Amino acid sequence: MSHKVEILSVGTELLLGSIANTDAQMLSRGLSELGLNVYWHTVVGDNPGRAKQAVELARSRADVIITTGGLGPTCDDLTKNVLAEAFGKKLVFHEPSAERIRAYFARTGRQMPESNLQQAMLPQGCVVLENDWGTAPGCAFEVDGVHVIMLPGPPSECTPMFRYRAVPYLQSLSEGVIASHTLKLFGIGESAMEAVLREQMNTMTNPTLAPYAKEGECELRVTAKADTDAQAQALLLPVVEQIKGLFGSMVYGVDVASLEQVVQSLLEEKHLTIGTAESITGGLMAKRLTDLPGVSRVFRGGVVSYTNEVKHEVLGVGQELLDRYGAVSAPVAEAMAQGVRRLLGCDVALASTGVAGPDRDDRGNEVGTAFVAIATPEGSYVRPLQLGNRPMRERLRTQTAHHAFDLARRYLSGLPYEN
Amino acid sequence: MSHKVEILSVGTELLLGSIANTDAQMLSRGLSELGLNVYWHTVVGDNPGRAKQAVELARSRADVIITTGGLGPTCDDLTKNVLAEAFGKKLVFHEPSAERIRAYFARTGRQMPESNLQQAMLPQGCVVLENDWGTAPGCAFEVDGVHVIMLPGPPSECTPMFRYRAVPYLQSLSEGVIASHTLKLFGIGESAMEAVLREQMNTMTNPTLAPYAKEGECELRVTAKADTDAQAQALLLPVVEQIKGLFGSMVYGVDVASLEQVVQSLLEEKHLTIGTAESITGGLMAKRLTDLPGVSRVFRGGVVSYTNEVKHEVLGVGQELLDRYGAVSAPVAEAMAQGVRRLLGCDVALASTGVAGPDRDDRGNEVGTAFVAIATPEGSYVRPLQLGNRPMRERLRTQTAHHAFDLARRYLSGLPYEN
Repeated sequence: MSHKVEILSVGTELLLGSIANTDAQMLSRGLSELGLNVYWHTVVGDNPGRAKQAVELARSRADVIITTGGLGPTCDDLTKNVLAEAFGKKLVFHEPSAERIRAYFARTGRQMPESNLQQAMLPQGCVVLENDWGTAPGCAFEVDGVHVIMLPGPPSECTPMFRYRAVPYLQSLSEGVIASHTLKLFGIGESAMEAVLREQMNTMTNPTLAPYAKEGECELRVTAKADTDAQAQALLLPVVEQIKGLFGSMVYGVDVASLEQVVQSLLEEKHLTIGTAESITGGLMAKRLTDLPGVSRVFRGGVVSYTNEVKHEVLGVGQELLDRYGAVSAPVAEAMAQGVRRLLGCDVALASTGVAGPDRDDRGNEVGTAFVAIATPEGSYVRPLQLGNRPMRERLRTQTAHHAFDLARRYLSGLPYEN
Repeated sequence: MSHKVEILSVGTELLLGSIANTDAQMLSRGLSELGLNVYWHTVVGDNPGRAKQAVELARSRADVIITTGGLGPTCDDLTKNVLAEAFGKKLVFHEPSAERIRAYFARTGRQMPESNLQQAMLPQGCVVLENDWGTAPGCAFEVDGVHVIMLPGPPSECTPMFRYRAVPYLQSLSEGVIASHTLKLFGIGESAMEAVLREQMNTMTNPTLAPYAKEGECELRVTAKADTDAQAQALLLPVVEQIKGLFGSMVYGVDVASLEQVVQSLLEEKHLTIGTAESITGGLMAKRLTDLPGVSRVFRGGVVSYTNEVKHEVLGVGQELLDRYGAVSAPVAEAMAQGVRRLLGCDVALASTGVAGPDRDDRGNEVGTAFVAIATPEGSYVRPLQLGNRPMRERLRTQTAHHAFDLARRYLSGLPYEN
């Protein structure tokens, strides 16, 4: 039997947009990995009537209901009361949970409001999910083939409670193993990728193919179900290889986080260092590199040269280049990369220049015109970009940085700079 | 009549947990500001049967349905097909939208797959919401008192489509006028802010006060309902002044986007320029400044000095300072700010140095130890930070950048550097 899961989140703060529903994302990911199918996310506020309706609906269509939130004293333990009532269970006092709550307050040196002991009232006969990360215990029970699991709302509690308490409970419900690999592509749009794969996507059932588009990059997830992980991998690997063959050097990695992470790994492997000279990206390339833990082993630094003086005086871009071609030009991009490579003494240097808007530059270059360059011990290369003048400033900058990192990973992998 | 809104998101990637439902958060926030009540969030996958059921349910309980996602060729325009059918509307070819889609591809220099023209099929008689940020147009229509608005899923499209296309449509649905002002605070935690305001928050009904916490900053939104904007403003302004009085220089702006935007405005006003020298923030400060359109008038550039050599050779930080105090120290932060001010010839310079982790530095400084510095024509100042070793790398870096911008806005506003 294939399980149908509904995630039901209770919290007015979600409906007001104060926070994003990251619990639902974390749970969805974890449940998919367990081979459980999440079919619905529902969010309601701290309102007993609407919460009750949502529970009745979930019960009618799902056989696993996971709730988040609504367990604390500020919402009168709404979720627990509504679920217990809907499934015909009494709430009974659970002394060990009361003891844990008292101990939690003692440990954190705070006075316990009496209302907190309400959290020790739990549905009769439930499996108590002990909360080592906060005060509200979770619980799980089954009635007429429907499993209910209640977890606290704060992500710092919900995440470990799911991983260490709910997953062991759920593992007994899933059959076989689900495994997946994610291919990351750069240099192709989502619809062009799908055009190549449409037939396969429609006819394949195990593994399945799922495409995602994300800020100018594409992902393709291949997922297989089998009795064992080895069998699932045996189904997956030929498909992964086939897709790599179809898209060639546009596939920049399998199960990797980002282009810059691939660049970091390649630099480490080859004991090389990198630096950046940024105009249009204005620090974004350096920021993305330094988001990576341990990057100080390969990243020396960068210069954000937002004015022509800084390009000339700090990076040593020739004044005649700036005068003749303007700051947004291939020769200046190349000179910026070469200049920062010299200045910082790094092996590989990346540079960006372009027009992010809101207006054209003073030479009449349209918004979205950009150049990325790479300088290496073997020479340099410039890729001109026309990113369109409609996308937002942020997206133009993100895509320009993608292109620069793409040059680096192509150089470091020994691939041609262009397809 | 008070409107009941349901946000219905269509996308298997949400149910797999590949992405969080940030669209729903953004929409919830925007809708609350318009005085519309969001009662439900629902997520279903790219599955026609379940999407149809979700639409029928939404229709039975809400009078405004806002959908996100499911408009592209990869999901066969699922949302549009299901909604059109549910509300008895035909899809008809909308030539102006087809033209926009062709032009979009022409502009970005890509080949248009024929399937993309499906996006120009829209419900008969709808209001077309032109998409200047991607290819799939949105649309809005009303049937039997239920309003439907369909928006694309990618956040980079959904956000501007909501703001510039859906909000004008929705404004006609709310009665009277809702006006609000948002005070931004830095240097106080959410619970401390709430403790000061708790009584007021509980007793005030018009205006209302709503606090938000966001990556080390706090926001306080004051919202009033009235017949006219002038009446709403008359209710709001005394409360805004009162709160400014309560929190003093911790309030860094009213209705401003960010600390860096305040810094940009102050620099423009005073005809001054700024530059950055970054170690722990690794380009984030420059990136945040260059996110601001028009910043090239005041931002000269920056140096990301991720190694001691770059600090010494490019920024001119004395070798004896680095040897004696280490890179993560007040003297080095100050020398970085002074050095970059000299190098770039800017009026004001900001610098950051610190330990972002994952490990302590080689001098034993804990993760979360950082220094931000400012150098100005009148001298320099260093603020030491202990941000705790628990927050994630990204948050440490964000908060460090906040502190640097806070120094700049305090200097430029003639305020003391500390409360």
